[in-house]
Amino acid sequence: MTEQNSNDIDALNERHRLRMERKKAIIDAKIAAADKQIGIIIVNTGNGKGKSSSAFGMVIRAMGHGMKVGVVQFIKGAMQTGEELFLGRFPEEVSFHSVGEGYTWETQNRERDIEKAQLAWEQAKRFLADPEIGLVVFDELNIALKYRYLDTDAVISDLLARPSMQHVVITGRGAPPELIAIADTVTEMDVVKHAFKAGISAQAGTEW
Amino acid sequence: MTEQNSNDIDALNERHRLRMERKKAIIDAKIAAADKQIGIIIVNTGNGKGKSSSAFGMVIRAMGHGMKVGVVQFIKGAMQTGEELFLGRFPEEVSFHSVGEGYTWETQNRERDIEKAQLAWEQAKRFLADPEIGLVVFDELNIALKYRYLDTDAVISDLLARPSMQHVVITGRGAPPELIAIADTVTEMDVVKHAFKAGISAQAGTEW
Repeated sequence: MTEQNSNDIDALNERHRLRMERKKAIIDAKIAAADKQIGIIIVNTGNGKGKSSSAFGMVIRAMGHGMKVGVVQFIKGAMQTGEELFLGRFPEEVSFHSVGEGYTWETQNRERDIEKAQLAWEQAKRFLADPEIGLVVFDELNIALKYRYLDTDAVISDLLARPSMQHVVITGRGAPPELIAIADTVTEMDVVKHAFKAGISAQAGTEW
Repeated sequence: MTEQNSNDIDALNERHRLRMERKKAIIDAKIAAADKQIGIIIVNTGNGKGKSSSAFGMVIRAMGHGMKVGVVQFIKGAMQTGEELFLGRFPEEVSFHSVGEGYTWETQNRERDIEKAQLAWEQAKRFLADPEIGLVVFDELNIALKYRYLDTDAVISDLLARPSMQHVVITGRGAPPELIAIADTVTEMDVVKHAFKAGISAQAGTEW
């Protein structure tokens, strides 16, 4: 390495250090300003992949910190999912209820779908009344709201009455605007590309 | 309920059934057309929440189906994350390597960041050479590519040389276009709203 090259790299490293020092000051100030500790409502919506898997990633995060978790799946596929098989190992830590019977186009039975959604919400309310449960996941709840199988106003009022430190994650396409309005963190998962469209099947481990 | 009301509901239920029957035919045809089984590359990018948590949701999906998993974290925060604490319980099933030292604005040291990123990629390559590992997660790899701590072309060529049934999940903001081009499934996580902006701190169980 010539002396000139070495000087250039030293200058680059120093510019990087100064830029990161300034960035740290800004970020530290933002962190200091965000000091509230309170149970939040997280909504994962949109047509892209990652809505339910992100909720299950938060489940193991919470378990890693010793929190108890409750899960209600409002739609159950034909196959048992990897997350259900795996979390079934920890009955003391995770209470897992898969109440729905399948996608609306599988059941083709509106009255039965409504009945199942209402049963699922009864279980959901038991979690929302239990301050021992630190995180609850309502997987595909948005679908039940979108089809009006459940009353959005009633669901929101139950959500807002939960214990103050309890976190809730709600997933599914088409989250209703009233739910987005009361949520703390909302992410829209957008499809940039999807393997399924390229003829690749939904595979164990990544999709279910 | 009057007879008229009852007839209306019957008609609604029947329209629902017919609509779902047609939807099922379309979806079944798409499922039949997507019959390839092959290891895929999944990229979670964007500024929203859910990139890493979705990857960890896939980890437990894969574990539920009896697959072995490898994880490399390219950036390690100051605190031990819930997912690391939790997955540490299963050393036979998950090999977890947290190699980075912290965000670029914390280390403020470009040369040391580069050295750590290269060490992390050495571990990544060991996973990519092992057909026993069904799913690998490269958490925050996109950051290392964005800062040019690793050469994107070299990383892509290692990814493409992996065992044919191995799945890879790559997370982080600012995924480079060359990586998106070779990926099978790409999701952009967009912020609709975030609790942090409302003064709520990053909390255990939801954010780390």
